[in-house]
Amino acid sequence: MSENDKQLGSFLLHEDERLDDLQINGLRLIQNKKNFCFGIDAVLLANFARAKKGETVLDLGTGTGIIPILLTAKTHGKRFIGLEIQEDNFRLARRNVELNGLQDRVEIHHGDIKNMAELYKPSGIDVITVNPPYVKAGSGLLNDYSLHKTISRHEVLCNLEDIVKGSARLLKPNGRMYIIHRPARLCELINLFTGFKIEPKTIQFIHPSFGKNANLVLIEAVRGGNSMAKILPPVFVYPESESGKDKEQ
Amino acid sequence: MSENDKQLGSFLLHEDERLDDLQINGLRLIQNKKNFCFGIDAVLLANFARAKKGETVLDLGTGTGIIPILLTAKTHGKRFIGLEIQEDNFRLARRNVELNGLQDRVEIHHGDIKNMAELYKPSGIDVITVNPPYVKAGSGLLNDYSLHKTISRHEVLCNLEDIVKGSARLLKPNGRMYIIHRPARLCELINLFTGFKIEPKTIQFIHPSFGKNANLVLIEAVRGGNSMAKILPPVFVYPESESGKDKEQ
Repeated sequence: MSENDKQLGSFLLHEDERLDDLQINGLRLIQNKKNFCFGIDAVLLANFARAKKGETVLDLGTGTGIIPILLTAKTHGKRFIGLEIQEDNFRLARRNVELNGLQDRVEIHHGDIKNMAELYKPSGIDVITVNPPYVKAGSGLLNDYSLHKTISRHEVLCNLEDIVKGSARLLKPNGRMYIIHRPARLCELINLFTGFKIEPKTIQFIHPSFGKNANLVLIEAVRGGNSMAKILPPVFVYPESESGKDKEQ
Repeated sequence: MSENDKQLGSFLLHEDERLDDLQINGLRLIQNKKNFCFGIDAVLLANFARAKKGETVLDLGTGTGIIPILLTAKTHGKRFIGLEIQEDNFRLARRNVELNGLQDRVEIHHGDIKNMAELYKPSGIDVITVNPPYVKAGSGLLNDYSLHKTISRHEVLCNLEDIVKGSARLLKPNGRMYIIHRPARLCELINLFTGFKIEPKTIQFIHPSFGKNANLVLIEAVRGGNSMAKILPPVFVYPESESGKDKEQ
């Protein structure tokens, strides 16, 4: 225990960590300040995803475990699994599950998305959630990031095709997939989903404010569904008073 | 000349026809009241499409000629061609071009979208616009419609693939395509466009009001472009006071 570590009941908060209140059911989350910390994306995805009574949810690349932890409060799902490849994230996600006393509903597994079809029973998952790295491998500037952040933001260890292909194997027929991504990747996402017979059913765009282009897209896709997509009313992240300012600029 | 026909300068308005003011540059349009009359779709598409100085624009299934006629006022395009298969529409579109004195900028051709690759020089068109039938052949109730309306609303004479495949042949490299359609067909549109190497670049959703799902989508796609789509701020057709009412319902 370093002199700057803090005791949280029986939990130790290390000096490079922070503790956030998740604003629902008293849930809290430990994050490493040096690594990728959750943003509005995780919250939007957790609000968008639906899990019905008795369903099993698999969160791919769960990071700190924020999505399955939030989904215990926001849905009626029974069992939540977080799959994480980075060992320190995996350990942190397990600590977060314990911190919230959710060991009976949330499991964190240490493994690679690329091998997910071997890790779980085919056609055995009701719902898959994923907040994947947004940047294609080889694009963007990597220099400013630690390797840890790079893996969270860039498609270094897995790409969209790995995610969709694996999900198509694991989802039950009519199983649902929830993803958040950049609109710039929309066409690729739709091509991949429909190519693997997971049909986008509900799409919602997130705009930073009224009058601005979308910067995020949420997609609900159904394995074996038809391709009649619904476009939900958009979300504007900043309230109207803020958007008014934007329009005047 | 029937006793209910009206004389419009040198033009005759038949008793089953109506005359609309297009609210720009004094443009007017004759429509047959029994047939498909233009709606907000045509106006939205004409506002969305861009044609630069010197460019040639081909409007597929031009109907009354509304799109090319509006585009003469809304863009800097040089030459506008409307292609129409239904003979009475073709004649009406020609009358509308003459009514507005646009014979030097707008040509109406009588022909079939399915044959468009033979009608025009390959890779010779700068811009293609299309407000196609929205309903798949075999779907929906046909009984209530006249054959004329059915052709305008249902994919009886051509389908989306005919349109996109033919356009891929006619567009210049970097040529642009503008389409309006139902969001339910979004995935199919994106699959077709990317399949024929016409990449969606700009997408805009139209919502009847704030808080309602989109009921129309506008797409700008570029032949040989990359697939980085931008999602523009949405359009809400009814003003805020109306949308307030919707939210209360």
